Amino acid sequence: MLEDFAKEKSDFLKKSDKSKKGCIDKGILKIINLFNSKSEYYTTSSCAGRIVLLERKSKKKSECDWILTKHSKVAFDEIASSLKKHKIKNEIWLKQQPIILHVACINLDAAKKLLEASRKIFKHSGIISITKRRIVIEIIGNEKVEAIIADKDFAADEEYIKHLTRYANRNFEENKSKSDKFLSIIKKL
Amino acid sequence: MLEDFAKEKSDFLKKSDKSKKGCIDKGILKIINLFNSKSEYYTTSSCAGRIVLLERKSKKKSECDWILTKHSKVAFDEIASSLKKHKIKNEIWLKQQPIILHVACINLDAAKKLLEASRKIFKHSGIISITKRRIVIEIIGNEKVEAIIADKDFAADEEYIKHLTRYANRNFEENKSKSDKFLSIIKKL
Repeated sequence: MLEDFAKEKSDFLKKSDKSKKGCIDKGILKIINLFNSKSEYYTTSSCAGRIVLLERKSKKKSECDWILTKHSKVAFDEIASSLKKHKIKNEIWLKQQPIILHVACINLDAAKKLLEASRKIFKHSGIISITKRRIVIEIIGNEKVEAIIADKDFAADEEYIKHLTRYANRNFEENKSKSDKFLSIIKKL
Repeated sequence: MLEDFAKEKSDFLKKSDKSKKGCIDKGILKIINLFNSKSEYYTTSSCAGRIVLLERKSKKKSECDWILTKHSKVAFDEIASSLKKHKIKNEIWLKQQPIILHVACINLDAAKKLLEASRKIFKHSGIISITKRRIVIEIIGNEKVEAIIADKDFAADEEYIKHLTRYANRNFEENKSKSDKFLSIIKKL
């Protein structure tokens, strides 16, 4: 299994990045490099955390238009100008999403070790797939904002969106400091 | 292992309910009874989904005052009157939280079977603990609202809270219909 895992890892890491952004968030690079330097692990997808404006296109939550995506704190003016440029046809949500990482593990022992370490900081982390080839853990942060701010028939006022942005940015920072703690924990793994 | 698991299960199910509410949500009873009727599984905690008003007491997100907790849809008037009665000292968040279930599984095969079935509907479900005694899966829904509505220095206007309540109730229903689908899937396990 060890050799197969090493080969799959090397094949996987050679592939180009398939995410919308096309590259790995700076904020998470140290964590990713650390995992990929260990023979027992490699990362298959990642987001350091972000603040987004989404338009929900249908009942299916996954069908969305991405109006604004920031992998950093956001200024109210950016949100306001994105909204101004956009013709609102459906629900618009402001979301602050935490870190999310998928880590492939060589075996159950390696997965258990990582799971226990992860859950000290990110309590909704869990093993999401077990195959003969690898075990995948999803590590996911706690800080979230999910607030509707407009629809065809209403829009939250500027004052409220300003406040909401402030708390989204505060949570973004909290997510970052927890991610830093997580890095120091996995260094000791 | 089979006998140990059966004994632990029976001991666990004899214990009294430790949740704040003191009983199992009606909305989730069928799912719980189904799991507990199977020799491979039992549930250790559960919430069908809820809509809550929380006051964050400190930086630690877990330290909260629960101002209002509804395991059903909520009327705007209930929210307004809860807010009126409450002296706001800190951040107040309106949250609609999805189903969450912890299920103990007898072994890895039983856990894998349940994990695959769960992730068809609830994609953030995962194995959160593996010990010699049991494996625990956390099943968690997707629908969420997490919006700040007041703090010491501001309050969202009534009109906005009315709209937010409407979407929280809509999500609550979506969570319910997904939970019904989940029930029909685990019936076939």
